[in-house]
Amino acid sequence: MFIFLLLPLAEMVHRMEKAILFICDGLGDLPVKGRTPLEAARKKNIDRLAKEGINGMMSTLGEGIIPGSDTGHLQLLGYSPREFYPGRGPLEALGAGIDLEHGDVAFRCNFGSVDAKGKLLDRRAGRISTAEAAEIGKALDGMMVDGVLVIFRPTVEHRASVVFRGRGLCAAISDTDPHGEGEVLACKPKDGSPEARRTAEIVNKFMKIAHEKMSAHHLNLKRMKERKLPANVALLRGTGMFHKIPGLNERFGIAGTCIAGGALYKGVCRYVGMDAQNVKGATGTKDTDLDAKVNAAIAALKTKDFVLLHVKATDNFGHDGDFEGKRKMIEKIDAAVGKLMKWGGAYIVLTGDHSTPVLLKGHSADPVPICIWGKNVRTDDVKKFGERACAHGGLGHILGSDVMPVILGLLLKAKMYGS
Amino acid sequence: MFIFLLLPLAEMVHRMEKAILFICDGLGDLPVKGRTPLEAARKKNIDRLAKEGINGMMSTLGEGIIPGSDTGHLQLLGYSPREFYPGRGPLEALGAGIDLEHGDVAFRCNFGSVDAKGKLLDRRAGRISTAEAAEIGKALDGMMVDGVLVIFRPTVEHRASVVFRGRGLCAAISDTDPHGEGEVLACKPKDGSPEARRTAEIVNKFMKIAHEKMSAHHLNLKRMKERKLPANVALLRGTGMFHKIPGLNERFGIAGTCIAGGALYKGVCRYVGMDAQNVKGATGTKDTDLDAKVNAAIAALKTKDFVLLHVKATDNFGHDGDFEGKRKMIEKIDAAVGKLMKWGGAYIVLTGDHSTPVLLKGHSADPVPICIWGKNVRTDDVKKFGERACAHGGLGHILGSDVMPVILGLLLKAKMYGS
Repeated sequence: MFIFLLLPLAEMVHRMEKAILFICDGLGDLPVKGRTPLEAARKKNIDRLAKEGINGMMSTLGEGIIPGSDTGHLQLLGYSPREFYPGRGPLEALGAGIDLEHGDVAFRCNFGSVDAKGKLLDRRAGRISTAEAAEIGKALDGMMVDGVLVIFRPTVEHRASVVFRGRGLCAAISDTDPHGEGEVLACKPKDGSPEARRTAEIVNKFMKIAHEKMSAHHLNLKRMKERKLPANVALLRGTGMFHKIPGLNERFGIAGTCIAGGALYKGVCRYVGMDAQNVKGATGTKDTDLDAKVNAAIAALKTKDFVLLHVKATDNFGHDGDFEGKRKMIEKIDAAVGKLMKWGGAYIVLTGDHSTPVLLKGHSADPVPICIWGKNVRTDDVKKFGERACAHGGLGHILGSDVMPVILGLLLKAKMYGS
Repeated sequence: MFIFLLLPLAEMVHRMEKAILFICDGLGDLPVKGRTPLEAARKKNIDRLAKEGINGMMSTLGEGIIPGSDTGHLQLLGYSPREFYPGRGPLEALGAGIDLEHGDVAFRCNFGSVDAKGKLLDRRAGRISTAEAAEIGKALDGMMVDGVLVIFRPTVEHRASVVFRGRGLCAAISDTDPHGEGEVLACKPKDGSPEARRTAEIVNKFMKIAHEKMSAHHLNLKRMKERKLPANVALLRGTGMFHKIPGLNERFGIAGTCIAGGALYKGVCRYVGMDAQNVKGATGTKDTDLDAKVNAAIAALKTKDFVLLHVKATDNFGHDGDFEGKRKMIEKIDAAVGKLMKWGGAYIVLTGDHSTPVLLKGHSADPVPICIWGKNVRTDDVKKFGERACAHGGLGHILGSDVMPVILGLLLKAKMYGS
């Protein structure tokens, strides 16, 4: 009898292992006057995490490869972008809450402004408001073009996701967004297949109908009367086809939730079979409500094995070249890490998806510090979390592809190879 | 004339390089109250080895992959299990001293006890003695089933190796061992091939004949009279087909010997073309005669280039969750290392095949410390052999697949790539 009681208990203990992958976007940096933002920040909780945990440096996609936001996150979740990258369009569409179906072709879209001759006046339609864009977008959502359904979903300000759903579509087609000045481009097939030719034709028909509907929209007529630029063209880019792939649960036996402000991160997580929460106050900016995100992560871990907790602003400050902004954001993150440590119900893996050095104002291939903290992890001699200190860590120099296997080990979900 | 004398001498020096790969099974661990068993052990010889040698951390099969005993050793010997893993059955059979032939199908086997209805009463036949099992096994060895020879070789207590030898066999068949409670299973083909179907049929015929012969065996009649469980069924598992592969000598030009207590390790070594010694007192348990093993290794290196010296008990203590046992075993190993250092006739590569943390009571993917000691090796700043200290070592973080190339370098058998 005793034995029978013990067995389910032992199993329960196994099932209770939890982990948080805490990604500070663009965290890594280069020294400015001898120190990186991470090294300059006062961050007693994160430093204690490093002291009590095991540390290292992580090259997300390999030495010298600059990760994008999409490819970096895919790799950290155990999905090699070489095998699984669907293009930005489908990830943004998933992040916008669209339930994609196998074979859908998705785009990122900007509301833009063109004159009567088709010359592009503005790629952002005079920075149209989210509310106005949502209203104009309704006129485009649900239209059928040659038997293909168009899903048009405005998101933030001038941005939208657009999905074409129907049989025999193909993503080997060009953008209609000129990505700069000039005329709106005609969509062209990129290969000789009849599918690419037909899809390009359908996109061009959509462009024409959308232009007509938008030009006639009462809000645009009102904007023009007010001498504002009309949102009268849909600029498409980031084309990709969605294929259903085996999710984290199917591949690794874990259930995960995404806590993020930015749509892209939710999209990546939904793509790999996690759910994505809309946390009130999680904005993907420096004003994001970190406390609300931490609370949401803790709540999610009551039923889930794994949370990806994403903070975007570190990357934004890197892009802006704002050292002090990045340093202060890290100090805000320190409070969030402290709260998670105090709660103590999960392993914490703290890292970034790539470096965004303030000196470069863009992503770089420099590896990112990583710390793993929790009861069954080795420690090392690292005392502070930073680019120089973590290079001495017990994890050594690892790759992004090592991260999910290590997390599976912590969750006791790693499988023995052999016997 | 002088030149002619020197050349053969130089060649002689080359031929005299020797190496011992000293594997403490499951050596790596996680800290308990701040220290691992390795860090807590008093081990002045091993620490001197680390101080005088070069150290690092080794991930046997890659980050996050938990090595089995069989796959881990294969990899350390330079044989990727992805390419060369034959299944556990053939490795155990080789370890039991059976000379396998190309195309043999081998199993691990337990003597078990069934009732008249075929219900399994015990997977270990009442923990039958080695002597009784050997006697009963003789009744099964050498039988022919549909033109296929059955080699039945009892090993220790209730364990045996079973080999089917004949043309056109196939290992894509299921176990007859239910691996728990219930009925003995019928062997089923795992694919639609006629070879799998025929092999499954032959195994089922063997099961029936074996049951009849065992049930009628005088020792079992005696056991039943004494109210002991009879050893009246052969439970088969770990099926695999043996293919002859190029050995260490063929691939790398080195001759090797295995000094181990456990049959599996001898089997892995024989599989890769080494010979395996039966050293008196080498038991594969905590009571193993380490001194005898060291003497056997030194003796073997008079004629061989390479010895794999295996100690099992560190792993056993990890599985038992016995921190003190593991620590004390490492202190015993320290004496053996001291003796080998004093002898000084070979490079020593000291490591484990994987971690078996006492906290987890099982294998883990945590990397294992490794030290290489001998005259022509670099040194580093590591002063003690342990999980934390070796993370700072001059070898860095290496993979199991790096170990044999490094050993070949020490033996001056590595080949230049290019010119």
